[in-house]
Amino acid sequence: MSDVPESHPRYESLRLRERIIAGVEAGVTSPHGLIAHGRGEAYDYLLGEVSGAWADRAVEATAAYLLRAQRPVLSVNGNAAALVPDELVRLSAATGAPLEVNIFHTSSDREAAIARHLRAHGAGDVLLPDGVAALEGIESNRRFVHPRGILRADVIFVPLEDGDRCQALRRLGREVLTVDLNPLSRTARAATVTIVDNVIRALPALLEQIRQLQQQPPSHWQRIIEAFDNNSVLAQAENRIRSAEEA
Amino acid sequence: MSDVPESHPRYESLRLRERIIAGVEAGVTSPHGLIAHGRGEAYDYLLGEVSGAWADRAVEATAAYLLRAQRPVLSVNGNAAALVPDELVRLSAATGAPLEVNIFHTSSDREAAIARHLRAHGAGDVLLPDGVAALEGIESNRRFVHPRGILRADVIFVPLEDGDRCQALRRLGREVLTVDLNPLSRTARAATVTIVDNVIRALPALLEQIRQLQQQPPSHWQRIIEAFDNNSVLAQAENRIRSAEEA
Repeated sequence: MSDVPESHPRYESLRLRERIIAGVEAGVTSPHGLIAHGRGEAYDYLLGEVSGAWADRAVEATAAYLLRAQRPVLSVNGNAAALVPDELVRLSAATGAPLEVNIFHTSSDREAAIARHLRAHGAGDVLLPDGVAALEGIESNRRFVHPRGILRADVIFVPLEDGDRCQALRRLGREVLTVDLNPLSRTARAATVTIVDNVIRALPALLEQIRQLQQQPPSHWQRIIEAFDNNSVLAQAENRIRSAEEA
Repeated sequence: MSDVPESHPRYESLRLRERIIAGVEAGVTSPHGLIAHGRGEAYDYLLGEVSGAWADRAVEATAAYLLRAQRPVLSVNGNAAALVPDELVRLSAATGAPLEVNIFHTSSDREAAIARHLRAHGAGDVLLPDGVAALEGIESNRRFVHPRGILRADVIFVPLEDGDRCQALRRLGREVLTVDLNPLSRTARAATVTIVDNVIRALPALLEQIRQLQQQPPSHWQRIIEAFDNNSVLAQAENRIRSAEEA
């Protein structure tokens, strides 16, 4: 974590920055991932770096979808692995959803490094694309998936997704649950549920929500899903960014 | 430039992204520079990726300050060198202000790489910190400067500046002219003139403005400087970001 004192006004942001740069050095995160992280920093700054009501609602819906799912999968890219590895491993254990590595820029070295990194943080089996199984309608490397993972999943939790794949997965009838700090992005607009929040805050909140909803019957999960309106939470988050008064 | 077609809706943004990643591979840009670039992308997106009236006014004032200066210097970091090397070399030729390498994260290898990169784009002499001359009131590596450059400069043009140094330079009585896409940043607020714009658009506009103002007498430059209000241009840029109607 280098030499940034805890008293620094930007301490938390700088600490995350060091963590994601360490991810690059470990072969887990791509240079493009650093740029994406910077975009997220800017949106988080404009959102006041707090989790708003829009995020709470989306976290609750995400938990309900994951618990109701038949074959949920947690899709992990380099940024998510670098920022929240422990939380992803715990989410997998809590929901029974396997972790699957899926990255935008082709690199089997980096796929293997992400799997190693997750196992070092306590993951058991980590699914990797087998180079054969592929989803229709996706141009990038992200089309390649594991035959028993994303290929067959009904619900996919993908923090830090890219827009093209999110749209393709929705066209294939999958439910996509994402975490994206930009409420205007194609991913945010196309997903079933968009948690507009920093993954560093969203994942702990999601784990707590899973724990609470596990004590409720499936009919309760169903009601949460039916009442959830993604366009409404996106509009709330966008209003927060646009609102000079509160910033 | 890899395989992004010109027809892609994000072509220009993706092209810049490739250019800055190439900067990392050439040893010119730091990983932190990629994160900073991402932050800039987000603010540029919210600004509509166009140069507003606030930027035009600030470009005009920047040109006037550079022309009126006794000892102007152009301070160059890794991101500026990667994104606008040709324009920086042309600006140096047009104003007589030397190029001086000054970076946040200590690395004499990277300082040398930036100087080589600028010379490959046509620069003559490029000033480097000599490891002895230092500015007061700056903690980071950016305190080290060239004894005949920033140390003695009255006006410093620093695209993509950091907040700490900008504030320190102002306390030392220097005029700081910067380019920053975040109108809320400490740099933006502390600088003498802040061009809230993407450097890729701001530098060509600045070169054109220099050319035009060189045909005017110094009294004209003086009037521009006296009429300029940095708080006003920052407020205009912030309003643009906050305005849902226009986005």
